Amino acid sequence: MRFIHTADWHIGRKLNGIDLLDDQRNIFEQLLKTVKDEDVQGIVIAGDLYDRALPSEESVDTVNRMLSMLNRELRLPLLVISGNHDSATRLSTGRQWYLSTLFYLNTKLSEAFEPVVIDDAQFFLLPFFELSEARQFFDDVKIKSVNQAMTQIIAKMKQCFDPDKKHILVGHFFAAGSSHSDSETLVNVGGLDAVNVNDLEIFDYVALGHLHNRHAIKNNKVQYAGSLLKFSVSETNQEKGVYIVDTKQMDRKFIPLIPNRDLIHLTDSFDNLMNPEFYQKIKRDQYIAITLTDQDIIVDSMAQLRSIYPNIISLDRTQQVKLAKIPNRQTSKLDPLTLLNQYFENVTGHVLSEQQNDWASEALNLVKEENNATN
Amino acid sequence: MRFIHTADWHIGRKLNGIDLLDDQRNIFEQLLKTVKDEDVQGIVIAGDLYDRALPSEESVDTVNRMLSMLNRELRLPLLVISGNHDSATRLSTGRQWYLSTLFYLNTKLSEAFEPVVIDDAQFFLLPFFELSEARQFFDDVKIKSVNQAMTQIIAKMKQCFDPDKKHILVGHFFAAGSSHSDSETLVNVGGLDAVNVNDLEIFDYVALGHLHNRHAIKNNKVQYAGSLLKFSVSETNQEKGVYIVDTKQMDRKFIPLIPNRDLIHLTDSFDNLMNPEFYQKIKRDQYIAITLTDQDIIVDSMAQLRSIYPNIISLDRTQQVKLAKIPNRQTSKLDPLTLLNQYFENVTGHVLSEQQNDWASEALNLVKEENNATN
Repeated sequence: MRFIHTADWHIGRKLNGIDLLDDQRNIFEQLLKTVKDEDVQGIVIAGDLYDRALPSEESVDTVNRMLSMLNRELRLPLLVISGNHDSATRLSTGRQWYLSTLFYLNTKLSEAFEPVVIDDAQFFLLPFFELSEARQFFDDVKIKSVNQAMTQIIAKMKQCFDPDKKHILVGHFFAAGSSHSDSETLVNVGGLDAVNVNDLEIFDYVALGHLHNRHAIKNNKVQYAGSLLKFSVSETNQEKGVYIVDTKQMDRKFIPLIPNRDLIHLTDSFDNLMNPEFYQKIKRDQYIAITLTDQDIIVDSMAQLRSIYPNIISLDRTQQVKLAKIPNRQTSKLDPLTLLNQYFENVTGHVLSEQQNDWASEALNLVKEENNATN
Repeated sequence: MRFIHTADWHIGRKLNGIDLLDDQRNIFEQLLKTVKDEDVQGIVIAGDLYDRALPSEESVDTVNRMLSMLNRELRLPLLVISGNHDSATRLSTGRQWYLSTLFYLNTKLSEAFEPVVIDDAQFFLLPFFELSEARQFFDDVKIKSVNQAMTQIIAKMKQCFDPDKKHILVGHFFAAGSSHSDSETLVNVGGLDAVNVNDLEIFDYVALGHLHNRHAIKNNKVQYAGSLLKFSVSETNQEKGVYIVDTKQMDRKFIPLIPNRDLIHLTDSFDNLMNPEFYQKIKRDQYIAITLTDQDIIVDSMAQLRSIYPNIISLDRTQQVKLAKIPNRQTSKLDPLTLLNQYFENVTGHVLSEQQNDWASEALNLVKEENNATN
């Protein structure tokens, strides 16, 4: 059989405060197109359908529609597990009924040992689990790491192996050797010990979720699908998409999905970024992280850049802003107007005009009078 | 057919801060017993399965288990609508799949016009709806009240009437003439205009939820099921339970359900309530609202009563505490110790002992010294 391997939808996610729901619905349309183009017979979703345990109503509605589209409209078997971002309990609502249309959803460790058989493949759907759940399930308080738990999990799964079938593990964990981006929060990833990728060798394919970089691990059997969208600046260079896995030859290929609005990272000088010759070549409504190479202070740089690039998600610099060079004298002895003149000249490279000097002088006098009145 | 009519489960509800989940699971067991004793062929749940739009994980788990027990274990058709306390979107998760086991769940107005036919009856499942939803559905901005919406809803339902069947409306609204207790919040009930009960006459039975008192309306066709438990002091005298409706004779009977811990209201003097002869006759671990008939101040009355009645949910008085009678003189001219003596005597009926008088004197001197030191 041919199936799509996807993961880490994180429906309801925000990108530096910007709601991504429209982009998520859009990339799902791309996924639907791939489903049709590639004539797949099933979809594996390896966890983190939601971005949070308590998703908004709109997120719930979106996920419900997506799953209904795939499973009820397109009549595709779904093989789904909960990830660490999902509430296993909330996601499991309806689980028993879903089986009626070959929608297999596991949210508890105890459910992982009844493989789903489709065509020539046995699928073991292992949801994200906490160590406490593993200790309780195996009645073994000595389980201190995910890897120890996995050793027992794999041994138990092996007992169910049908030698005539391919064996596919669907999981949501941190496999050893994988490097991860910063859009998985440290708490979530750090709480998970790594699973030794060598222990996974008994499977023909391990369809993983959790890390958003599909290249997080290089292994001929173990594959992260990666997220459908870029969720942080560290992911700007990652190609996002889904894998098509064929169980016959047991091979896989990556299909890139093109988002409505990509997330790109521009590192350049302010002048270049504001130059029409530069920005007219760019799709400016993308999500853009900007790193300025300038050393000088630029007054109101964010507002100026936003007038050209409406969806800036972050702004930083390659190097520290040059400190204004106040000559090494006892500045505290200088009067305010002189200090202001020096500061303005240091920052802008120009001296105050006569008019500007008059304004500054008036304003400073006003402040001085007010201070005298209130003291 | 014979079906159970129930409503207003409000899973996750608290009673003056006390979690009722255990009581709710317990009363559900009573409901299950009734299902078996009465040999019913279906269950109508007329809204407010949850107490809040964002239920806790534990509440979600509880409702999921209850519905699964009724529909999957006992294989009973379920006819369910969302109430104003439910999130229609969240509750609707799984809806399409539920149909596979005759679990009919409506959460949108638009879904109400496809009757469910079971045996000799057509069920119209009308969820709680907002006026805005009705205006949009009927494309009629002139709908200003629930009653106006209901007129159109009923007319539209009538078009689907099969003359050979009984016609049953399942709804969650405030029917005209019903008197309501204070455990439905004013905001929720007040936001709903009343529906004229006469307009409901075209149905053979109207299975309502919303008001917690099953006697809220007296009508030969329109019936509130009432809540399964007492949720406020105003409900202490209400008998709670479910209705068994038989569509053949189109009659109904009430089956009381007995909770694990009832909610009772005791109005008595403090001395009587603390008297073993009185309280030993009472199931003291019930939820108890106490109204004291005393007029005198009782020091630490709540703590004393709690030592006998552990689950007091409220404490008040039939009348104001008698004001201590300070004789009509210029009390401001009296020294503090004399004032304290008078107050103590007025409140307790006793004078201060010599020892108590010494303590009071010392304490007052100490305060006086501290005042002098800081001034």
